[in-house]
Amino acid sequence: MTDEKLPTRNENFSEWYNQVVLRAEMADYAPVRGCMIVRPYGWALWENIQQALDLRFKATGHVNAAFPLLIPMSFMEKEKEHIEGLSPELAVVTIGGGEKLEEPLVVRPTSETIIGHMYAKWIKSYRDLPVLINQWGNVVRWEMRTRLFLRTLEFYWQEGHTAHATADEAQAETLQMLETYADFAINEAAVPVIRGRKSEAEKFAGALRTYSIEAMMGDTRALQAGTSHNLGQNFAQAFDIRYLDTNNELQHCWTTSWGLSTRFIGAIIMTHGDDQGLVLPPRLAPIQVVIVPIFRNDDEKSQVMPVVERLRGELSGFRVRVDDRTEVTPGFKFNDWEMRGVPLRIEVGPKDVAKGTLAVARRDIAGKAGRTFVPQAGIAAQVADLLEDIHKSLYDRAIKFRDEHIVEPKDYPELKEIVQNGWAFAWWCGDAACEAKIKEETKATTRCIPLDQSAGSGRCIYCGKPASEKVYFARAY
Amino acid sequence: MTDEKLPTRNENFSEWYNQVVLRAEMADYAPVRGCMIVRPYGWALWENIQQALDLRFKATGHVNAAFPLLIPMSFMEKEKEHIEGLSPELAVVTIGGGEKLEEPLVVRPTSETIIGHMYAKWIKSYRDLPVLINQWGNVVRWEMRTRLFLRTLEFYWQEGHTAHATADEAQAETLQMLETYADFAINEAAVPVIRGRKSEAEKFAGALRTYSIEAMMGDTRALQAGTSHNLGQNFAQAFDIRYLDTNNELQHCWTTSWGLSTRFIGAIIMTHGDDQGLVLPPRLAPIQVVIVPIFRNDDEKSQVMPVVERLRGELSGFRVRVDDRTEVTPGFKFNDWEMRGVPLRIEVGPKDVAKGTLAVARRDIAGKAGRTFVPQAGIAAQVADLLEDIHKSLYDRAIKFRDEHIVEPKDYPELKEIVQNGWAFAWWCGDAACEAKIKEETKATTRCIPLDQSAGSGRCIYCGKPASEKVYFARAY
Repeated sequence: MTDEKLPTRNENFSEWYNQVVLRAEMADYAPVRGCMIVRPYGWALWENIQQALDLRFKATGHVNAAFPLLIPMSFMEKEKEHIEGLSPELAVVTIGGGEKLEEPLVVRPTSETIIGHMYAKWIKSYRDLPVLINQWGNVVRWEMRTRLFLRTLEFYWQEGHTAHATADEAQAETLQMLETYADFAINEAAVPVIRGRKSEAEKFAGALRTYSIEAMMGDTRALQAGTSHNLGQNFAQAFDIRYLDTNNELQHCWTTSWGLSTRFIGAIIMTHGDDQGLVLPPRLAPIQVVIVPIFRNDDEKSQVMPVVERLRGELSGFRVRVDDRTEVTPGFKFNDWEMRGVPLRIEVGPKDVAKGTLAVARRDIAGKAGRTFVPQAGIAAQVADLLEDIHKSLYDRAIKFRDEHIVEPKDYPELKEIVQNGWAFAWWCGDAACEAKIKEETKATTRCIPLDQSAGSGRCIYCGKPASEKVYFARAY
Repeated sequence: MTDEKLPTRNENFSEWYNQVVLRAEMADYAPVRGCMIVRPYGWALWENIQQALDLRFKATGHVNAAFPLLIPMSFMEKEKEHIEGLSPELAVVTIGGGEKLEEPLVVRPTSETIIGHMYAKWIKSYRDLPVLINQWGNVVRWEMRTRLFLRTLEFYWQEGHTAHATADEAQAETLQMLETYADFAINEAAVPVIRGRKSEAEKFAGALRTYSIEAMMGDTRALQAGTSHNLGQNFAQAFDIRYLDTNNELQHCWTTSWGLSTRFIGAIIMTHGDDQGLVLPPRLAPIQVVIVPIFRNDDEKSQVMPVVERLRGELSGFRVRVDDRTEVTPGFKFNDWEMRGVPLRIEVGPKDVAKGTLAVARRDIAGKAGRTFVPQAGIAAQVADLLEDIHKSLYDRAIKFRDEHIVEPKDYPELKEIVQNGWAFAWWCGDAACEAKIKEETKATTRCIPLDQSAGSGRCIYCGKPASEKVYFARAY
């Protein structure tokens, strides 16, 4: 850690973010432009995210598999909207084993095409449906403006790809996975999200309908934190994915795809982080409790360490780190673990040993207000309660912040003002021209048309024509 | 599943292998030459392998991280032997975002170079050492002759990369990880392995010393099932990985790397498989027990299914699948699950319901000999015992087969004969010329110089000069 002070979020949110990612050793810049190294502390967080999602995928009948990294260029071109949307972002292998390839191979930016090709081979009859496969892996998109976790040339994600017999089943799957993402975001990451449908302009290249969960970051900008696509029969037609139905007639399948990426780590950092650094949600934090022994000499050490070891044993149900470094002071350690966002810090000194107490400090409440002395006895139950409470308080704080920064504008000039520091929730006629004009004039894009909006109608915030749906407008990552 | 009969291993081992992989739905051919799709059943096996290894890595202090897929070509060229060894196998990205790249990027064939670059940046002092990082991921090597799992353009693996202050520590790490692989192979996969050192000709490009675990397949050919490399200071010098020692003097680090890949799935298939298909080792099998309900009508079904559901509940500590398909016969199911190598099959019919019994069939003992009737009561303990026994019996069978096919030749003509159907364990003078001649004349390569060979000396099996070490010669995958 450098001694230089972290910029505050108000001073420079963007620089605060970069510094937190680097100083907490979540990630580092790679020697290839726009690529990142996910360092062990960041990867441990990703492993916890993976586990939480994977359990949910398997509980809903999905299985994992692995499809190739390299995709023939001709595959990409089979679905017209798909290639139009993705072609500016492709990394292309043209040389293999020292020879120029006859057909260039694309490093997968997403896998609908190659998976579609295989589904066409595997699926024969209605008995083979549904196919519910997920893949954990890496993808490459040649982005021009990159940010650690938020937008990198290579990123890590899961991509689910399913095939169904009917349009209804595909739509149900699409919404089920959107709900799975929302459940994960809220109940594991304490990140409040709004579930909604993307506009035609913002949907995935090749999708019939795209749904997303949208979260508000600490600077009020929006972040699309996960997407679920109903692909209709677009890819089934392009790749000839067909099945014999119960009447022995060939039908095209209905397919979906859905993904959540390491970008979500950016969402966690920017939702919960404060001016001291990271604040990690307890259920996902790689280290839930750090124990810092406090002693000035060997005599005190010999009193303190047995208690620390006993506490470590009692807390074996949690992810615990004992920081027994001798080359740095306790104060340095406190700052270090605050920067890394560990939810709870336990301090044990000679006085605590004598009194049977310890100090416990919550990361989510700064300074003295978050630090209390408690009895050593029953520490596991206390820690469990505190971690639950931190989860809840992080969620409540984030949803309060978000709702304070969502405003329903009465007119377009007000929308313009709102999106400087918040989201505008406004009627929109659905015309892509209005959406494009708003984007051009305010840099705010449509984030999503929420699923759970009350019925009714109004007039488009831009053109004044009748509108039947409200949409969130915000500047976004 | 096709109805065509599986070729026997004696008829055509190679075709038997391909058919088993395809029919058991472990993997499929990708539309890109030499690439594979790992299907859900194969990937579930890989996930169990990953879990078993990852636990061992973390127990020995390693942490996971993720380094970029794309490596600047100039990095590859920094370590002379490394690039010489790997350059014929590289896949190269030359176009990104529609433009020709200034510097081509290699799709990683292994990550010593880019990780070395980052270690040089991260490591400052002896306090930062050792660095013990592992990565789970995919790599690409442009192989000309490919086989599903055994040799594919893209494969999945873990690669550990560590940096140490001293040569001794690096050597200890190298051997620790070799032992970790051996422990995994023996105790999880029931695959007997021989730990040993590779010859200079067979070592990793850029390593000081390479160690491997070598296993004998069902056709007696050898398979290198995992490797651990002591890289000496080769990469530390090429990438300037240095640390300040306790005397405040700059020293180069000593580094290691070690990997085990999806190739190991091939080892499992070819070690244990029989003429009915896969035989999976119980501790790694994605499905440990399949329950097949037997009934001819709804009345029988209503008797049988409640018992099946109760058994499923009692076996919740195991990975259980109930095969309740109605469109196929029990006989079809038996063959199907035998092909997929499920260690135990439980059958429950109306008579069993009446008598409180069930039939249990072991996959490792063919036909009637492996099938017994046992009481339903206490099924969980019986299954636990049976799975343990299957693990042991698979291991014993494999080691017996292996040891029957290892012969110590008295002279070179005998070696030539032995390696047609086994391994020759023979004195070797260590001269690369003898090794090359034997390879040219017999297609057998040196597999490894075992760690635990008794002292002594003899005469080189090829040239007759004095030799101080014995080595295994075998034809290999």
